[in-house]
Amino acid sequence: MSVHPNSKDSALRQRAANVIPGGMYGHQSIGRLPDGYPQFFSRADGCRLWDADGNELIDYMCAYGPNLLGYHHAQVEDAAARQQALGDALTGPSEVMVTYAERLVDTISHADWAMFTKNGADSTSSCIQIARAYTGKNKILIAEGSYHGANFWSTPRPSGVPDDDRKHLIRYQYNDLASLDAAVAEAGDDFAGIFATAYKHDAFVANESVDPAFARHCRKLADRHDAVLMVDDVRAGFRMAHNGSWSSVGVEPDLSSWGKVLANGHPISAHLGNTRMREAAESIFITGSYWFAAVPMAAGLAVLDVLEEKDVVSHVTQMGEMLRSGLAEQAQRYGFDLVQSGPAQMPQVLFANDPDRVLGDAWCLECLKRGVYFHPWHNMFLSLAHQPDDIERTLDAADSAFKALQSLRSPTQG
Amino acid sequence: MSVHPNSKDSALRQRAANVIPGGMYGHQSIGRLPDGYPQFFSRADGCRLWDADGNELIDYMCAYGPNLLGYHHAQVEDAAARQQALGDALTGPSEVMVTYAERLVDTISHADWAMFTKNGADSTSSCIQIARAYTGKNKILIAEGSYHGANFWSTPRPSGVPDDDRKHLIRYQYNDLASLDAAVAEAGDDFAGIFATAYKHDAFVANESVDPAFARHCRKLADRHDAVLMVDDVRAGFRMAHNGSWSSVGVEPDLSSWGKVLANGHPISAHLGNTRMREAAESIFITGSYWFAAVPMAAGLAVLDVLEEKDVVSHVTQMGEMLRSGLAEQAQRYGFDLVQSGPAQMPQVLFANDPDRVLGDAWCLECLKRGVYFHPWHNMFLSLAHQPDDIERTLDAADSAFKALQSLRSPTQG
Repeated sequence: MSVHPNSKDSALRQRAANVIPGGMYGHQSIGRLPDGYPQFFSRADGCRLWDADGNELIDYMCAYGPNLLGYHHAQVEDAAARQQALGDALTGPSEVMVTYAERLVDTISHADWAMFTKNGADSTSSCIQIARAYTGKNKILIAEGSYHGANFWSTPRPSGVPDDDRKHLIRYQYNDLASLDAAVAEAGDDFAGIFATAYKHDAFVANESVDPAFARHCRKLADRHDAVLMVDDVRAGFRMAHNGSWSSVGVEPDLSSWGKVLANGHPISAHLGNTRMREAAESIFITGSYWFAAVPMAAGLAVLDVLEEKDVVSHVTQMGEMLRSGLAEQAQRYGFDLVQSGPAQMPQVLFANDPDRVLGDAWCLECLKRGVYFHPWHNMFLSLAHQPDDIERTLDAADSAFKALQSLRSPTQG
Repeated sequence: MSVHPNSKDSALRQRAANVIPGGMYGHQSIGRLPDGYPQFFSRADGCRLWDADGNELIDYMCAYGPNLLGYHHAQVEDAAARQQALGDALTGPSEVMVTYAERLVDTISHADWAMFTKNGADSTSSCIQIARAYTGKNKILIAEGSYHGANFWSTPRPSGVPDDDRKHLIRYQYNDLASLDAAVAEAGDDFAGIFATAYKHDAFVANESVDPAFARHCRKLADRHDAVLMVDDVRAGFRMAHNGSWSSVGVEPDLSSWGKVLANGHPISAHLGNTRMREAAESIFITGSYWFAAVPMAAGLAVLDVLEEKDVVSHVTQMGEMLRSGLAEQAQRYGFDLVQSGPAQMPQVLFANDPDRVLGDAWCLECLKRGVYFHPWHNMFLSLAHQPDDIERTLDAADSAFKALQSLRSPTQG
């Protein structure tokens, strides 16, 4: 196999280093990816991605989530183009905003109303703001290691953030009922709410489904204290269920935050709430320059149409299971101990006994050279555009990557 | 003149009240506009806006700023469509991100680097985060009444926000050197930076140009204390100058925040900084699901092309001056005391001795009935699409509105 071309990417990275601090920032910086991963991409279609050097890749990151139906999904793009011809960001909202709110409320069982924002962090921040407005209290319980966006209160690396902006957060351990009890006790009479991600999808570690008993305990504690239960569905929404993700365990939150998939990549986020939260939601002042723009809402309606017409959740789950079982078989055959976790459609793939990710990085890089974009430490994403032959082609690449990796295998592995 | 049709708008508002808290929220809620203003719009083109009932309006809000070149500006939309055909939100950024950062750095004299975000509030929040990271200090000086977005630290109505999230802000009076000195003294050895809007564009009150002596004093104080000078150009950027707005008074900030006009309505914001701020900018962790999306960057490049090809600032200034002088003549003729303030291209139009805005609201409503969308208490915006015949038609409507208003005139007015 020839060397993976990356000369254009290298040149772009040199230019970027001059005009972008650190050359890139945020979750799409490749700073913590193996050397050899491309930083820049030239185009995408379906489940395929082309890097700046024209290398074609089967994409298992889906833009870190937004691409649920495939890049350039015709039904979504047609709806977006029709709305664009009318107008996008105007001096006020368009009818589509009302229709979209109605459709989301019809789709997501806990919700009686919707508000739209732009970033996922806007929706999570709005949720805790509403919880605090509802209760008149400050303490928000969040799970150790959970990501809820990168605003002052939530950024995982709080350089430049005063401690005071984060002093009303109390940490619990995801799925650990006793730690939640302890956090509620610590909050005392200043307990405003519990925030939980749809499932434990932390980076770098094996992911975990939500324990139904934990979800029910969250609900019970919120009810007992007239506090607010919030589910962060920004990352998992509509890949886990055609509803809020905790509907699968029979627990309804008071508020949920959404983003990413809503409009298949068109920029919109949302927070949804029940009637009990409505007055508090009315009391907060939140806004943004582009929050009322109509194109992402029209695209979001088209996404809901597709979700109703096709069983997207089943498809991505099946594709994820096909990938997972194939990788498990290969790992066993080549003698590697693979740790596959999370829902199949949002797979986290790690190697056991690989704390510095030597094996994980090397395997992902070998897959990349063979046209498959895996992520070595972040959960990945399947889309409606991933078809069985894409998974087969991926497994061919993965097989060859495992083979190439055998020389790197440590004595403690496998 | 027939009654202004609004039956579709009314029906939409009733639907919205069910599924959107308060029926609408944020700066595009008409809650504080005169009864009769439409909440919903169906389309826009150039400087024209059609409300949900099909009433055509000459738009002086320009989507609250973003529409600098006219809705559906062909050059911008062509660039956006070309990029959309390649890809928008992908698993990583596209080349256009580097090119756009380079072009902004070439265009804005104080800037050596750029970072892109989505909301204006993302850019202002990032600035204070960088200032705090640079100095290791917390206190940020902001002007009483200035709007810097609606994140926890900045929202003008802090329902649901702990006091602790706002305790490190110190207020000064815009253009008041002594109040700035007092704020610096209050900050003491915890002084991180000064934030100032490009000019005083507060709602409800007469606006003010920046006093060059004030701008220079901001610079001097920041330098003396090794603190950070930040200019919020989200609202005024590229309408005041083909550069940062304070370039006109010869003062270079360390950081500036941008949004709104950057991509003529496509959603993108940015913060720019000098070399002194680079390391601190590298230290912060900020990100968002759609921040690396390529379409708004391609649109932003097209906006910069238009800014170079056409003297946009001169055009909007001339159109604003034509409007301003026409309104002044009419007001005098009809015996009203009009308070016109702010830059001509971002005009604030108030009536003297009208604390409850009885005259202002009534006059704006009369203009609206005649096809002109003015705002009674927020600064307005001119665009490249506003042509002399639009201004003339506007002045015809305004004349007729003044005439209709005479019966409402209070004895103390005029």
